[in-house]
Parts: sequence; structure tokens; C-alpha cells
Amino acid sequence: MNQHVRLCEVGPRDGLQMAKGMMPAADKLRWIRQLASAGLREIEVGSFVSPKLVPQMADTGVVLPEALTIPGLTVCALACNLRGAMAAYEAGAHVLAFPISVSETHSHANVGKGTDAQIAMMASIVEWVRAQSRPMRIDAAVATAFGCSLEGVVPVARVAAVAEAVARTGVDEIALADTVGYAHPAQVRDAVRATQDAIGTTLTKLHLHDTMGLGLANVLAGLNEGIRGFDSCLGGLGGCPFAPGASGNIVTEDLVFMLESMGYQTGVDLPRLLDARAILAQALPEDPLRSGVAAAGIPKTFTSTS
Amino acid sequence: MNQHVRLCEVGPRDGLQMAKGMMPAADKLRWIRQLASAGLREIEVGSFVSPKLVPQMADTGVVLPEALTIPGLTVCALACNLRGAMAAYEAGAHVLAFPISVSETHSHANVGKGTDAQIAMMASIVEWVRAQSRPMRIDAAVATAFGCSLEGVVPVARVAAVAEAVARTGVDEIALADTVGYAHPAQVRDAVRATQDAIGTTLTKLHLHDTMGLGLANVLAGLNEGIRGFDSCLGGLGGCPFAPGASGNIVTEDLVFMLESMGYQTGVDLPRLLDARAILAQALPEDPLRSGVAAAGIPKTFTSTS
Repeated sequence: MNQHVRLCEVGPRDGLQMAKGMMPAADKLRWIRQLASAGLREIEVGSFVSPKLVPQMADTGVVLPEALTIPGLTVCALACNLRGAMAAYEAGAHVLAFPISVSETHSHANVGKGTDAQIAMMASIVEWVRAQSRPMRIDAAVATAFGCSLEGVVPVARVAAVAEAVARTGVDEIALADTVGYAHPAQVRDAVRATQDAIGTTLTKLHLHDTMGLGLANVLAGLNEGIRGFDSCLGGLGGCPFAPGASGNIVTEDLVFMLESMGYQTGVDLPRLLDARAILAQALPEDPLRSGVAAAGIPKTFTSTS
Repeated sequence: MNQHVRLCEVGPRDGLQMAKGMMPAADKLRWIRQLASAGLREIEVGSFVSPKLVPQMADTGVVLPEALTIPGLTVCALACNLRGAMAAYEAGAHVLAFPISVSETHSHANVGKGTDAQIAMMASIVEWVRAQSRPMRIDAAVATAFGCSLEGVVPVARVAAVAEAVARTGVDEIALADTVGYAHPAQVRDAVRATQDAIGTTLTKLHLHDTMGLGLANVLAGLNEGIRGFDSCLGGLGGCPFAPGASGNIVTEDLVFMLESMGYQTGVDLPRLLDARAILAQALPEDPLRSGVAAAGIPKTFTSTS
């Protein structure tokens, strides 16, 4: 069994875009450097989207090229359309993350077009990227894969069908995303199995939120189905605009603690990772940071696998 | 597969004993009645221990007889020695919960005697209880089963050996307790399997804390090994005296949400359960209540299995 788990830290993108405070580019870079020095090898550093809609991401064009100078770091950026994808490429991103909602209603609310139109957009982007001189990995995130706060239940068969259509565009990897935090472990198992049946190992990752407190239970359900990639966020920053008071992404600190305790290798140094919280606490005083491990301290029984 | 999961609400005991505020007996009873009306059929209503050491439990002799008048409720009480067990019996408890620490150091700190002496005490209690006219179920909790903040690692083989010795005293049921919140899912799997090998279905329950944020992941690991009983606490009250800032027991609301979503029957009505939080919030203004489901609201995709 593969014991290596690939983590992608999405705090500088998914975490910050919901934060009350604005973090200056210099702080973002200090934070990204500290995350990298703790051993995180993949970081989503920002997004190329409308600065009017997401002002926290307006400086991605400044942050990304600096992040590229960090040795060994895979730099990811999110975009929602061809223009954004081109900007990510021009800035030098190693990986493009692109969301495609299974829920039509959420897709319209999020990117202004339906699911099929967004899949067609993905195909255009893949074609454009493949025609460029430099390679860029393309990761699609199948969003609202575990339910939608607007549409409600999202059938597993529909998730697998959308993933299959996305895979046909030629993307490199596909993630299932619990955009609003509704997932539970039995659903994770069912959706992962159905998607694996449809697209095999192109399903590499889960993007989970901890809205209902089930985030790490859902990770465990994914691990049990062979998933070895997860997005997470230092301090569990983030949240859901449709769920006031809800917590955000799964907490990187607690995820690393769980995985390393269980014998999985993340490559992350937990004490160093905890040190990176100080930057966040200072830069975003209004945004409470979560983490059981940070609150209670690393147990004396902990031994790192990495 | 058995889809029925038995929950024991331990808030009025484990939750309150760490609370900053003191809850009057009348409030405890309002809370217990509301928990029962939400469908919780088993509640640990207090403990018969030294009122000097745990002043919050001094009124258990008042609370317990009133709780017995609630139709269909199984009333549990904790004791740590024969005198406490006799008091629980005299008060009319249906179930005696009795802790036995695997860690010698914790055992001395908690009950003033070592593990073997506490097992011998358990045997005396079983003998005494069986000689009385009324039956009382005896549940032993094998404490510090997943590590100890004083001793560190607790070997799985030692957990199974202690559970086996406890089972030989003739208790009805045995739980494994993550007293300090160090457990992770692989350890839960290993400890449950080893204990099942030693004592079979006498292992009925896990008592888990959410100190590191892994509480519900550990529940899932237990479910996967066939465990169908869990302790939990409304609002995740509780905590650990050895881990300042650490959160307490696993959250009943989120546990019920997870189990019912997954197709397990708990018998609990989630909206009514959330209503019971108001009593806690009012009576313990200094003790923050946790729960993802309470913060974000019950998702519209939720359907109850019960």
C-alpha cells in the first residue's frame, strides 16, 4: 500500500478568500515560505479571478512569481476561465486548478455558466495549454460533489458522469470537492468508488471542508478507498458564504498529525508547521484559527512517519 | 450488519466536571429531560466521588433519583470505589460506570491506586452488586487506552491484557477510553482488534475525546471494526486538565449527524438535540459550546435514518 500522502496547502487561496482581513503580499510570501520550509511541497498561492469579486486575490500576479523562487515547491493557482488560465500560465504556475460544479445552480452562481459550458471551457483551456512551449499540470476540481447548499442532494452517478466528461477533456488530475461541507464518510466512500470506476487513477485528491466537524472522518473514508491526496488549510481558515459561523477547510496541522500518526508520510515537520500559525495570527487578528493539535500541544506519544 | 448505534450522553458527568461554571441540579434535570426527549436513551447523570475533588458532582444523589422518573431512560452513574458504587446502587442507578486506567501513573493520579488494585476493587464491586436484590449493569471503562499524558505510549497488548483481566471480574460491558485525547484511527483499529481478540463482544463501546480534532475519525475507525456504542457530550463540553485549550468529548450533535447520515440508527432527533444546547449556553456562559452542525445549521441534504 502506498503510504505517501500528497498534501496541497490551499490557505493562501481558499483560506484567505473568505478571511475578514486583507493579507498584504509580503505577509503571504512569508507565510508561503514558512509552509514550504515545514515541508509542504504543493501550495495554492492564489487565483486569477476578478479582483472586484475576490479582492484578497488581486496580488496573485505579484505573489506567484516570488513563490516560484522557493526551491522544490510546486506552485498552484486557481482560475475559472480561459483568461485566468492564461494569466496563470504567463505568471509561471506549475499547476492550474480549475473548478467545475456538478450543481448547475452553484455553477451559475460561482462562474456564471452551467456545468456543460464549464466543461467545454476546460477543454479549450487544455487545448490552449498543451499548445504552449512550457508544460503546466491541469487539475480539475469537481465542486459540490457531496451536496449543494442551493440544489441539495447531488447524486453520486451525476458526480461520476461529470468527472468522466471532465477527464475526457484531457486534464491531468481530478479532485472531488466538498465545496459546502456537507459530506459524510459513507458518501465519500460511495462517490470515490463511483468516480474511480469512471476515471480510475485520474481521481487523485479530495478537497474537504470541516463545516460539520466531519472533515478528518471524511479523510479517513478517502484513505480507505486509496485516495492519497488532500487539500487543507493552516488553522482551518476559510468557511462557506452559505453557512454563517461554519468552519472552513480541514486543518493542515490536525491532518498532518493524523496521517503521520497512522504511518502515512506527508513530508511535513509538525512543529515547524505550527510555527507558521504565528504569521496568520498576526496578519489576520479577526479570523480565529482552529486546530486541536495547536490548542492542546503535540502529544508526547507522537512520532512522525516522515 | 447491525445498523443500530447506542449512544451514551456523558455531558452531565464528564462534560460538567471540567466546566468553569457550576450547574444547579434543577438545570441539570431540565437538560437531562431535554436530552431524553430528543431520543437519547442512555445518560450518565453524575458520579459518586468526593465532592471536595469534584464539586460539580456533589448533587448526583439529588439528580439521579429524579432522572429515574424519565420514562425509558437508562440512568448511568460513575464511581471509582466500592463506597461510590454502593451509593450509585442505593440511589437506583441502572448502570454503574467504573474507570480502570491502563497507565499505572494515571491510575494513581486518578483513583489513588494502581491498575491491579483497581481491578481487584472492580471484582469486589461486582461481587457486592450481584449479591443485591436489584440488578445493576456494570460497565468498566479501560482508561488511558490510547496513550497517557503522564506515561506516554500505552502498548496495545497491555490494553488487551487489562481488558481481559477486567472481563474476568464479571462486568457486563467494557469500553476503551481515550482519556487524554491522543488516539488516532490506526490505533483505534489496532486496540479494538486486540481487545476483541481478548474479550470478544464484551467490548461494546468507545469513549473518545476530540482533543486533536480526530474524534469523529476515531469513531469511524471504531465503526469499521464493528463497534456500535459511543460516549459523547452535547456541545463537546469537557476537556483535559493536562491540555489547556484542548476541546473535550466528541460532540453529540455532530456524532448524531454523521451516524444518521451514514445510515446508522441512533434514535435521536437532531433538531430537538440542538434545542437542548440553549440550556447549556444559559447555565454555563463561560464554557464555549462546540458543534459544526450547530454553527452551520443542519444541511438541507440531511435525512435521518432513525
